[in-house]
Amino acid sequence: MKAHVYVTLKTSVLDPQGQTIQNALRKLGFGEVSAVRQGKYFVLSLADGLSSEAARAQVERIAADVLTNPVIEEYTYRIED
Amino acid sequence: MKAHVYVTLKTSVLDPQGQTIQNALRKLGFGEVSAVRQGKYFVLSLADGLSSEAARAQVERIAADVLTNPVIEEYTYRIED
Repeated sequence: MKAHVYVTLKTSVLDPQGQTIQNALRKLGFGEVSAVRQGKYFVLSLADGLSSEAARAQVERIAADVLTNPVIEEYTYRIED
Repeated sequence: MKAHVYVTLKTSVLDPQGQTIQNALRKLGFGEVSAVRQGKYFVLSLADGLSSEAARAQVERIAADVLTNPVIEEYTYRIED
């Protein structure tokens, strides 16, 4: 079982790295891209015996307590069998 | 229209950052996590007038030529209306 966790800056937080990428894209001719936000992506491999509720609870704790800085970031996740 | 691009290290490439996270998780009591891979996640906002084929072509070029180092990384993407 695999869990995919996506961590992004909250929309209220400036993302200078994303802005730099957007500027670079504009200079490269990709003017249709009006904004870029950069985040982090984690793939967790989970033990096979885990029930899907246990996996969900576990991944939620890991995402909230370890992978995300709750002051400036937020997360979403997806569990794949 | 938004495009979500996920860039990960190829499976043949070692991911010391992911291993460090996995070690930390094990020490924190999350022993069910057998492996962690870390990647990058980009959200691109695209101009509304773009057709979905044009958006797809555009995002594919951006992902392949700008956001990914093809020697060690690979990408997937998803376009959301």
